[in-house]
Amino acid sequence: MTRVALGVSYNGQAYSGWQSQLSGNTVQDKLEAALGRFATHPVSTLCAGRTDAGVHGLMQVVHFDTLLQRPASSWVRGTNTFLPADIAVQWAQPVPSDFHARASAVARRYAYVLLQSPVRPSVDAGRVGWVFHPLDHGAMRQAADILLGEHDFTSFRASACQAKSPVKTLHRIDITRRGLGDPHPELGWSPCYWRFEFEANAFLHHMIRNIMGCLIAVGRGDQPPEWMAQVLAAQSRDAAAPTFSPDGLYFQGPVYEARWGLPQRTAAYDWLP
Amino acid sequence: MTRVALGVSYNGQAYSGWQSQLSGNTVQDKLEAALGRFATHPVSTLCAGRTDAGVHGLMQVVHFDTLLQRPASSWVRGTNTFLPADIAVQWAQPVPSDFHARASAVARRYAYVLLQSPVRPSVDAGRVGWVFHPLDHGAMRQAADILLGEHDFTSFRASACQAKSPVKTLHRIDITRRGLGDPHPELGWSPCYWRFEFEANAFLHHMIRNIMGCLIAVGRGDQPPEWMAQVLAAQSRDAAAPTFSPDGLYFQGPVYEARWGLPQRTAAYDWLP
Repeated sequence: MTRVALGVSYNGQAYSGWQSQLSGNTVQDKLEAALGRFATHPVSTLCAGRTDAGVHGLMQVVHFDTLLQRPASSWVRGTNTFLPADIAVQWAQPVPSDFHARASAVARRYAYVLLQSPVRPSVDAGRVGWVFHPLDHGAMRQAADILLGEHDFTSFRASACQAKSPVKTLHRIDITRRGLGDPHPELGWSPCYWRFEFEANAFLHHMIRNIMGCLIAVGRGDQPPEWMAQVLAAQSRDAAAPTFSPDGLYFQGPVYEARWGLPQRTAAYDWLP
Repeated sequence: MTRVALGVSYNGQAYSGWQSQLSGNTVQDKLEAALGRFATHPVSTLCAGRTDAGVHGLMQVVHFDTLLQRPASSWVRGTNTFLPADIAVQWAQPVPSDFHARASAVARRYAYVLLQSPVRPSVDAGRVGWVFHPLDHGAMRQAADILLGEHDFTSFRASACQAKSPVKTLHRIDITRRGLGDPHPELGWSPCYWRFEFEANAFLHHMIRNIMGCLIAVGRGDQPPEWMAQVLAAQSRDAAAPTFSPDGLYFQGPVYEARWGLPQRTAAYDWLP
């Protein structure tokens, strides 16, 4: 029996999330169907981080076990033949049997891309979140800093969350903006793209979308930066802002110890403003 | 009668190009239907540059005439209400009756985004071209330089082209690359994105996709850079490489004289690797 790890990227717009469903319209369903056709035996996969409906994957990692002996490159090419155009295996690598896509991950990275413009997304519909008010960089930075470190993130946790503990460690939140077009003729401010990058040991269900809702409330000036500390301390979902749209959320992938020798990133990483 | 100019952005994946067709499935059809619903009278538009099926628009510009008196902002908001999610009016502005979206344009800009990777696009399927061999930057630069200036571009012209003259002036071809992931384990080279930017007084039908086919032939080493001069001199479509995919092509928009006071760009410009 060989254990194989795969790096997979996908556009989540057409799918009901990662996790297998009876409908069959999930990324996992499409991947397992393609692997099964290539392997000519049923394949079940286990992933590093399940993504919600509409969320994209730049480098999801899965593992599976097989009796088949195939070079890594033919797992990539063979599986891609049977996958839809918006899902692709980026790499395949045999791994020791004690490697586990979820349990071996020491951290996860996500990016959120947000369009700030009076006009809704179009070229990038379904692939970016949207705000039609200008955001205050400094205020969001202050609010984000409050979340760094180990905390009980119950306030940012969906009721359906299955994690054993709400205590997680947020290593990093980077906030950058890109693009300064002409100022809008009536509003006087310039449209731009914001990019938020998150790294934590693990995330709760909806945690990033709930944090995004709160950061945007602070960025718009609806709440002061210190409000984030109150939300965190409340340990209640009611304290936080509504869950923000999945459209701009990208799972950048898990982080593994170097000893597993797995690729750190793929070209898909660079397809973000 | 008022003449109004609009800046429009769209994702071309779902449409049979810009130009109105009986099928009704073009960007112009969707735009005119939405304008007609908002204006409550039929509206016909004239654009700066027709785009092919699958080609995207970052800032197409159109003009139309109307008896309706409405503030510019309500043309934007009102029309967007009736447009599909992948098309949006970015700005509206009244213009003098001698402004003409096509005839007043002194130049046009296009960008081509190309993924160089052993694996096909996925997150960005339909939005980037694809090559699975590494390209030589210096060789493409040399070949591109041969095309700059005023030339007869017959070799790069589709047979269906309706332009009066094949003589056009190419002002600029910029070639940049972005992203250096881990080298591919078997191939030894790194996936990346290439971005080609073109500016000319005007372009012939398929001209950029035909130039892209030739630049890629040179970049792959199938032809030496000097071959581009032979292709140009041949003044025959048979001399050039096949027309490259529309997927990575973005109409960045027309350039007008400053006296018209129109916006130079929109936020959509920054949604490109």
